Amino acid sequence: MSLLFKNLRVHQVFGANTDVGKTMLTSALVRASASIYERVYYLKPVSTGPIEEADDEHVKRYIGANADRLHASCLYRFSEPLSPHLAVKLEADKGQTEILVPSDETFVQALASRIHKNASAAKSYSHMYVETAGGIHSPTLSGTTQVDSYRSLFLPTIVIGDSRLGGISSTISAYESLILRGYIVDSILLFKDEYYRNGEYLTPYFAEKGVDVATVDPPPPRLADPSANFAATEQYYRDLVPPSQEGVIFDVLSHLDNCHSQRIEELNSMPGRTLDTIWWPFVQHGHFKSAEDVNVIDSARGDFFTVYNGHRRPDSEKSTSSLLEPQFDGSASWWTQALGHANPILTIAAARAAGRYGHVMFPGATHLPALNLAERLVRDGPGKGWASRAFFSDDGSTGMEIALKMALRVFAMKQSPPLDMADRKNLGVLGLKGSYHGDTIGAMDACEEGVYTCEWHNAKGYWFDPPYIAIRKGEVHITVPQSIIAEHSTDEIILDSLSQAYAVNKRLDSPLASIYRTYIRRTLCRLQEKENPVLAALVLEPLVMGAGGMIFVDPLFQRILVDSVREGESSRTLPVIFDEVFVGLYRLGMETCGPLLGVNPDISVHAKVLTGGLLPLAITLASNEIFQAFLSDNKTDALLHGHSYTAHPIGCEVANETLKMLTKITTSEKWQSMKAKWATSEDSDPAVFSVWDQNFVETISQLDHIKEVMTLGTVLAIKTRDDTGGYRSASAQTLLKTVVAAANGDLPNAFGMHFRTLGNVAYFITNLNTPSETIRVVEDKIWFALSNTSS
Amino acid sequence: MSLLFKNLRVHQVFGANTDVGKTMLTSALVRASASIYERVYYLKPVSTGPIEEADDEHVKRYIGANADRLHASCLYRFSEPLSPHLAVKLEADKGQTEILVPSDETFVQALASRIHKNASAAKSYSHMYVETAGGIHSPTLSGTTQVDSYRSLFLPTIVIGDSRLGGISSTISAYESLILRGYIVDSILLFKDEYYRNGEYLTPYFAEKGVDVATVDPPPPRLADPSANFAATEQYYRDLVPPSQEGVIFDVLSHLDNCHSQRIEELNSMPGRTLDTIWWPFVQHGHFKSAEDVNVIDSARGDFFTVYNGHRRPDSEKSTSSLLEPQFDGSASWWTQALGHANPILTIAAARAAGRYGHVMFPGATHLPALNLAERLVRDGPGKGWASRAFFSDDGSTGMEIALKMALRVFAMKQSPPLDMADRKNLGVLGLKGSYHGDTIGAMDACEEGVYTCEWHNAKGYWFDPPYIAIRKGEVHITVPQSIIAEHSTDEIILDSLSQAYAVNKRLDSPLASIYRTYIRRTLCRLQEKENPVLAALVLEPLVMGAGGMIFVDPLFQRILVDSVREGESSRTLPVIFDEVFVGLYRLGMETCGPLLGVNPDISVHAKVLTGGLLPLAITLASNEIFQAFLSDNKTDALLHGHSYTAHPIGCEVANETLKMLTKITTSEKWQSMKAKWATSEDSDPAVFSVWDQNFVETISQLDHIKEVMTLGTVLAIKTRDDTGGYRSASAQTLLKTVVAAANGDLPNAFGMHFRTLGNVAYFITNLNTPSETIRVVEDKIWFALSNTSS
Repeated sequence: MSLLFKNLRVHQVFGANTDVGKTMLTSALVRASASIYERVYYLKPVSTGPIEEADDEHVKRYIGANADRLHASCLYRFSEPLSPHLAVKLEADKGQTEILVPSDETFVQALASRIHKNASAAKSYSHMYVETAGGIHSPTLSGTTQVDSYRSLFLPTIVIGDSRLGGISSTISAYESLILRGYIVDSILLFKDEYYRNGEYLTPYFAEKGVDVATVDPPPPRLADPSANFAATEQYYRDLVPPSQEGVIFDVLSHLDNCHSQRIEELNSMPGRTLDTIWWPFVQHGHFKSAEDVNVIDSARGDFFTVYNGHRRPDSEKSTSSLLEPQFDGSASWWTQALGHANPILTIAAARAAGRYGHVMFPGATHLPALNLAERLVRDGPGKGWASRAFFSDDGSTGMEIALKMALRVFAMKQSPPLDMADRKNLGVLGLKGSYHGDTIGAMDACEEGVYTCEWHNAKGYWFDPPYIAIRKGEVHITVPQSIIAEHSTDEIILDSLSQAYAVNKRLDSPLASIYRTYIRRTLCRLQEKENPVLAALVLEPLVMGAGGMIFVDPLFQRILVDSVREGESSRTLPVIFDEVFVGLYRLGMETCGPLLGVNPDISVHAKVLTGGLLPLAITLASNEIFQAFLSDNKTDALLHGHSYTAHPIGCEVANETLKMLTKITTSEKWQSMKAKWATSEDSDPAVFSVWDQNFVETISQLDHIKEVMTLGTVLAIKTRDDTGGYRSASAQTLLKTVVAAANGDLPNAFGMHFRTLGNVAYFITNLNTPSETIRVVEDKIWFALSNTSS
Repeated sequence: MSLLFKNLRVHQVFGANTDVGKTMLTSALVRASASIYERVYYLKPVSTGPIEEADDEHVKRYIGANADRLHASCLYRFSEPLSPHLAVKLEADKGQTEILVPSDETFVQALASRIHKNASAAKSYSHMYVETAGGIHSPTLSGTTQVDSYRSLFLPTIVIGDSRLGGISSTISAYESLILRGYIVDSILLFKDEYYRNGEYLTPYFAEKGVDVATVDPPPPRLADPSANFAATEQYYRDLVPPSQEGVIFDVLSHLDNCHSQRIEELNSMPGRTLDTIWWPFVQHGHFKSAEDVNVIDSARGDFFTVYNGHRRPDSEKSTSSLLEPQFDGSASWWTQALGHANPILTIAAARAAGRYGHVMFPGATHLPALNLAERLVRDGPGKGWASRAFFSDDGSTGMEIALKMALRVFAMKQSPPLDMADRKNLGVLGLKGSYHGDTIGAMDACEEGVYTCEWHNAKGYWFDPPYIAIRKGEVHITVPQSIIAEHSTDEIILDSLSQAYAVNKRLDSPLASIYRTYIRRTLCRLQEKENPVLAALVLEPLVMGAGGMIFVDPLFQRILVDSVREGESSRTLPVIFDEVFVGLYRLGMETCGPLLGVNPDISVHAKVLTGGLLPLAITLASNEIFQAFLSDNKTDALLHGHSYTAHPIGCEVANETLKMLTKITTSEKWQSMKAKWATSEDSDPAVFSVWDQNFVETISQLDHIKEVMTLGTVLAIKTRDDTGGYRSASAQTLLKTVVAAANGDLPNAFGMHFRTLGNVAYFITNLNTPSETIRVVEDKIWFALSNTSS
């Protein structure tokens, strides 16, 4: 709920430390603003200590002649001069008043409401200052430190520097803590001190970083006599903020005004500039007719982007509503997010590795972040029980190319004699129609020709048309292709629950299992009789084929496929690759799909969630048998594949931190209770579950214009009835277009939504820590959009 | 020059702020250490203020009964109680003594010497404490703040937390500034304060981060009477460090000892664990016979890794030398580095973007880091004058796949009628033998079969055997393949200087230019008559083919090749791709190679140096003609290629900061003077230059066992005489193996070297900001190794 108003420049004031003159310098700024503009707003969200010494009282006392222009307020007030988290506790302990400690969300919501109100009230251009308490990391009421708890408002910042001995250090450190949260620091302001001369040091130091530093005379010493003290202080403010409207404080004011207007201008220029210079992936630029089509992301936090909407409002000149609005990241930023945007723990992890290593050479070498990550994944992660090695690369596509090179080599080497290079070029893979493994040509060659084809794409292999699972009219269906079930009675099997559908081991004895087995064996026999290509690997996206259209493949079919390619003499068995880039690491509610399928792969690929949604890194895991095929005394037998930033420490460290957080989340009570909601009478510990509400999912599947719905873990897919279908279709986009717009106001559900479609499939993906309240609002928005659209 | 000794546990003590009790708590630790071990070392690198109040004097005064065990010292002492950078200035201004402000290198060198000496003197296991001054970011003598100036020593750290009001904030901020430099924080120690209770907040806060917090009773109030004050303080220390060797301080001591021994154990375990779990790229694991072969990188900074060598020393148990040693990163970590490892400016940039955005969805959207980067590259970077669009991807290989998809599409579309999909699959590229564009199959398919081939590699095109430039026996030679020059008199042209060789425009009228032109035209005619493949693009690594063996192609040949494919009717001209992944962004001394060649490409690819050597990001630039070929109203005409982390903000922000620093470096006087050294009598502004010394390069080219040497910009390539040659050769590795070992001691040249070979070619690559003094030492080491090896 980051805010930005054309008519109200809002700055938050953070102190480099406590007692650095934050209130005095804020008072000077307020007084200067009041001397120019008709209104000035001052907000002290939390005040501790005696009311007569409270900061808002100080600001009121020294506003000078323009008292009527000042609107000063305080949201939470405590009499004890302590850190807010202790002051609130003390007050509660006293039992005199019933104090409810507000959560960070409530706190920020209250602040946002106040700022919204002020912006609406401001008739002409005004200033607002939000003065925080103590140092930047002082805990606020909930105990979260201020830099973190104020972060979702993302207000531009004034830092009051420390002019005392040690103040260079505390000012720089405070700045760095703000930068770690991505804050925009517009100005640093501190007292002059002729002896310590901190300002002289800090001015060039921050000039290099593009941050303005200003110094002002220190206040007079505090006098014992109250009226003498008032007079001296008032004189000080009068000198600092003279009627001439000249001097340092007014320079700062005009600098802050410039920062504010430049920020708006910049945001407003971004859509046009983007359409001029950027070539987006997977985007037909011909469809982007105007600047309004461009989504300008100013910052992000948790489940939300903050987007600029000024360019979408013809009347923005007059508007008093925020130019920035929250937007739910409904595609989890192309399936990458799991822990929320700008997660401070991941930022710290990235910084720690960058600060310790930068990037360092990996082949022949080792470093802790890479080694720890490899061990975690191989021994205690998706590789548990079968993998022996981790090979690093940059993204799912490169990770899959490596997987393919591994699998093909192993197959070629175990033939006797080993295949020569010419034969190896013609090897093919076995897979499913609708597969997708990335956009590099090698990864594409493991998939059928289709919409994603391109000039050098040369599909090498055979792809089964798979049966799949979906919820229709509230019922769980398995749809079996006619090719498989032609001779049988029905191509639609209805099951009692998702849990039943995903109980793979139990289903192995079902009649459908026999049908699958017979069909697969017969097809494989037929393929073996053909000359080309010789099939050398089985390549699967377990459970869900994502880019292919969110196809929830019947896991029983995948299981029997794996079993089938492992039958027979060992030279003809196929190495099995699991592409878990999309489905792995709890995207579908489970760390890896092997246990559910009841079989492990020989090679698996992991990316996306691996780095918590922060930056590219991929890992290909391999069994010892795979590794051995490349082992010799000959350099050219090695796997000659590698990217410059192989195992870059930042990515590895962030991944390590991500895996720790995933464990924490998925072993939490909250997670267990979410899972429990999907329990059935037969299955108290369901094989699968979803963060989406079961009732909601079933209800939307009843809608006439919805063909089917499906969900697992964080993924919800909604397929519209659309006979054209496929990637070219725009029906899902059209159907759900009303969910995009934000509701007005500052209520918790006043957010817009970003979502993506794959032709006639719309999908929504949450983080693993998205609050259930947020998911319920998203469900309401989807329901509202779907139920108000004629079919 | 990071240090780690088995027999001496060294910790640095940083204060969260000034006046937090740093000296008192360090004294307590020193006193505790002295009560257990025969020696304890205390070092105050810089002391300001009256000597009687100096910290080392305090430590001596309160050491208690074991005074003889303490070795306390101070390196720089100033009487003024000011920040060191001001104190030294004031002293110098007084003119009483001649003060030379030590550089950071000199300062750290002095510290390192002292630590080395103490380690040698310590006969049994001992402790050492290095107490810094003021806050963590207080400037040291040079003006650099302490966290940065102490960074190359990378000592594990004790933070003395702040127990006062605001101390939660200053302690956390100080910690974060340390983390931004990668420091290992072993312990946080602070006074108990019953009112502010900072310890109670900080203990669980840091427990989550794995950092131990301990609180101790505060000292007694300072008494006016010196002897009473001494007695009270002595009693305080006696209580804190009791003869029973029990209590908090001893708990901290044993925790620090554990951290120290666990760190050594962990480092020692890493080689074995790595050989068990990691699958390295481009490495034949069969060649790694033992743990000793693994390079354990503990941290890195600037031009150096810090590597653990304990596992390579059979006598390490008894050794008093450092288990960690500096190692020059001679391959620039696989060609990625340009600004030095762990560059704090890049760390801050990464943190800023992570804190503001994390990663956010890019297709259809925009954010400042990506937009600014695209504009900079397109308008004011390598794309200047020809490019109109930037397409983001993850690494050079994916960037090249995108470039190929672009080029092939453009060629296919401009045929009339446009080629159908079947014909598009058979298009080929024109290139040079020895090309390399990455390891994904599509990028490989643009290269000839060779050592890097693999199962699905299907080379599509034609590759010229190119003439190349090298220095032999001090002379610049152009070696022209017999195929080009057969009918002519000589295949070796000798030029006066490198500058002459790279004066491409001047050479266009030379006889050799005519020979090239005729040969290329004739070959292209012949290729056009053949059926397959139709050539659809020219793909070049301008100036140098890196992975192919550091082949410095005659730029005249590349220029004429580009000119030739652009002749004739427009449907037959070929789009030109420059793969600048290795050569661009000043790796060869110039931002981009187009200006030197005198021609621009239609598509270019940039990666590696793009992010200053920190993390993966690639950009493919394209001209407007290329972009237009994908523009329509049909979604499936779009360039359907994209990686999940497309334009990830961290990478973009780091790249933006990198480009700023590159400009700063390459417009500096230092850079100009380096360039001026390569001026010739005809050419005062040489077309090319090198950071390597011209005399050194010519001298080593005279050695009998050296076939040729070549250099441009930061790259030095040395080819041995070896008839087997090629990638399989190990001759360069053997020849230079002695440069690897570190000289003993703590002198500036006491570093080992990491370098890489490509068969019989050894290469060395520096950063753009590697000090010339370091390069001279590296040259000496290379010279020593080469001249002491029999041919």
